[in-house]
Amino acid sequence: MASTQDQNASLPHVVIVGGGFGGITAARALNGMPVRITMIDKTNHHLFQPLLYQVATAGLSPADIAAPIRHIVRKQKNTKVLMAEVTGIDTVAKTVQVADHQPIPYDYLIMATGARHSYFGKEQWSENAPGLKTLTDATRIRERVLSAFEEAETAEDERVRQELLTFVIVGGGPTGAELAGAIAELAKRALASDFRHIDPRRTKILLLEAGPRILSGFPEYLAKRAHHALEEMGVEVRTDSAVQDIDDMSVTVAFERIGCRTVIWAAGVLASPAGQWFDVPTDKNRRVQVLPDLSIPNHPEIFVIGDTATLTQDGKPLPGVAPAAMQQGNYVANVIRSYVLHRERPAPFRYKDKGNLATIGRRFAIADFGKFGISGFPAWLLWLGIHIYFLVGFRNRFFVLAQWAWAYLTYERGARLITKLNARKR
Amino acid sequence: MASTQDQNASLPHVVIVGGGFGGITAARALNGMPVRITMIDKTNHHLFQPLLYQVATAGLSPADIAAPIRHIVRKQKNTKVLMAEVTGIDTVAKTVQVADHQPIPYDYLIMATGARHSYFGKEQWSENAPGLKTLTDATRIRERVLSAFEEAETAEDERVRQELLTFVIVGGGPTGAELAGAIAELAKRALASDFRHIDPRRTKILLLEAGPRILSGFPEYLAKRAHHALEEMGVEVRTDSAVQDIDDMSVTVAFERIGCRTVIWAAGVLASPAGQWFDVPTDKNRRVQVLPDLSIPNHPEIFVIGDTATLTQDGKPLPGVAPAAMQQGNYVANVIRSYVLHRERPAPFRYKDKGNLATIGRRFAIADFGKFGISGFPAWLLWLGIHIYFLVGFRNRFFVLAQWAWAYLTYERGARLITKLNARKR
Repeated sequence: MASTQDQNASLPHVVIVGGGFGGITAARALNGMPVRITMIDKTNHHLFQPLLYQVATAGLSPADIAAPIRHIVRKQKNTKVLMAEVTGIDTVAKTVQVADHQPIPYDYLIMATGARHSYFGKEQWSENAPGLKTLTDATRIRERVLSAFEEAETAEDERVRQELLTFVIVGGGPTGAELAGAIAELAKRALASDFRHIDPRRTKILLLEAGPRILSGFPEYLAKRAHHALEEMGVEVRTDSAVQDIDDMSVTVAFERIGCRTVIWAAGVLASPAGQWFDVPTDKNRRVQVLPDLSIPNHPEIFVIGDTATLTQDGKPLPGVAPAAMQQGNYVANVIRSYVLHRERPAPFRYKDKGNLATIGRRFAIADFGKFGISGFPAWLLWLGIHIYFLVGFRNRFFVLAQWAWAYLTYERGARLITKLNARKR
Repeated sequence: MASTQDQNASLPHVVIVGGGFGGITAARALNGMPVRITMIDKTNHHLFQPLLYQVATAGLSPADIAAPIRHIVRKQKNTKVLMAEVTGIDTVAKTVQVADHQPIPYDYLIMATGARHSYFGKEQWSENAPGLKTLTDATRIRERVLSAFEEAETAEDERVRQELLTFVIVGGGPTGAELAGAIAELAKRALASDFRHIDPRRTKILLLEAGPRILSGFPEYLAKRAHHALEEMGVEVRTDSAVQDIDDMSVTVAFERIGCRTVIWAAGVLASPAGQWFDVPTDKNRRVQVLPDLSIPNHPEIFVIGDTATLTQDGKPLPGVAPAAMQQGNYVANVIRSYVLHRERPAPFRYKDKGNLATIGRRFAIADFGKFGISGFPAWLLWLGIHIYFLVGFRNRFFVLAQWAWAYLTYERGARLITKLNARKR
């Protein structure tokens, strides 16, 4: 079939690798420009990562926080979508190598490949302490958490039962704090009356943070309130508690061995391997050190954005959050536009921090706006509104709102599915 | 912890194996009776199987058609739920054998373990032609169907592309007809504008039926209308077409080899192995031939219901549908009640056929009420209302309704997720 692209084969080709916040924003910002765009992603969907912890704790279904990339850009006639795995970049031939596919030539390249979790060199922990970055991670954690209650219900040994009802979350950043709050609610509310032998309200939830306080990206007074809110919900928060070891029965911290059967990793972040393909400087988390226009040294046509990149602004590295990735996506679209239309280059990229949010359960959040901050229920409403607003696609917005309204009224968790027996044994 | 059960350990113990329509109905009907109930299932959820094809075709999420069994019976103080796999029954010792668990003694046993698909001795087809009985089956089929379009988009060989865009459904019963209609809508509506190289509207959908007509459980005039409705939607229906062979590239039927990369099996049904544990007569589909009170010979305390059982009424075997299983669940609860309360036994079981429904896409259904039948949009509305009404749990009802209303207005399919690259290769 003849396609629009074939007729415009002479237009510059922009290849975007990664359909996260950065990549999708860049593609949208290039809509209508005289370029051809190819968006490549390993999965077929854009994922609203900030709500992934809700899938992991049975509050939302995978489809509620994901939308097919094709569908997002379906009206953008200059944009093709390719579901494939990128295996390397040839910066001399200017091609993207893709598994099971011809190399794809580019004129401009936007790398927005995100990050995975890092175990700080202890990769053997990954088996017993899965991290939370993809839908598959989330449904796997959901099966493990729900199965722990099922197994505890039938456990005959009291010690085993207590280990099954102990959940340890490693890392006191926003993801760790949100997970701890959500598991507390799941245990103490949604599951409270469903079991006969165990009382899920007696579940022990530990949040371990290596540093002196949780939520270190927030001002201390807000982090303290969040810490207090977690304790109110029954979460035991331990700071200055770097993990020494993890196995399938326990976590060791400060030379204490804590018996537990479910550990979730929310600590380290490691950028995708993109940086290694370019032979450019990277930081300790493998993030590419980009130039002020977000390109890499000697390659003004290659841009790296989002969690794959690092840039220092006012003496601090930019935070790895969705708004930063989106602003960068918009910015590189502007730079490419200036090349293509032979216009003046935009001024160096500057991240505008519009505020920072974290939520603890369904009543409490903290919001930091630099000059001032708020906490409690008003901050939670703000968090709710912003997250619903930014969910891609109206359908998701509507259903997530309805689902949350319902869950808020009833404390139910609708997505409590275990499809595999022995999900916890592998 | 002391539980209600422990105090009532002297009450008769009813073990229900299987949390489908039959098992759940039996448990509910025994609510408040002076018995202890243990419900055992391999998964943690009751599944609304009649809508499974909607999950397989990205119209609904798994959680929309499933509810945790614990949650369904949470207010039933006499009922325990055990997530475990039953491996056998000892009818002499009167115990249920369970993997990783002590044998469970019973006074009354209700086997409601359902059925899987049968490949009529061609088990090697199962790899290339998965069937649709569980949520895992449904999400696997969803990934395969969606991935076929993704692969077709990048296929460089025109023949391969056409094979990827050919979908064959084997079996012209309600599941096959519903799947064919839903795939036609997915391709011709939801995906129509999302691709650049392929036109999903040119998707070929074949429904193969070995018998002389599809929907043989319905009167001929209604089946004919459904056949016509499928053809209107672009489905090619072939009757008298028994499949001779299936491999990963083709289906062979009437000595014609049809190149296709996605085959779905909706043909045979094989009861769970329960029948073999009892040493009682079974039919060719392994269903237990039960007595008029749904018990098995020489064991008035053992009942077999739903798709695991077969019973002849007015010269015909009962249909393997949800209403039959539910009526049987209610009936055996009544029999057990009569034993426990020393009352008169109920009259032999009689299935009351309240009508039979099948739907083709989102505008057309057929409904058979014995003396008369209806078809078209009114039948579809009836189908919609009945299915929403029977969905277990208010939450599901509300969200399924909202989601369908939305999908009906927009032709969108919200659950279009592919989480694994190369989902089609194994």
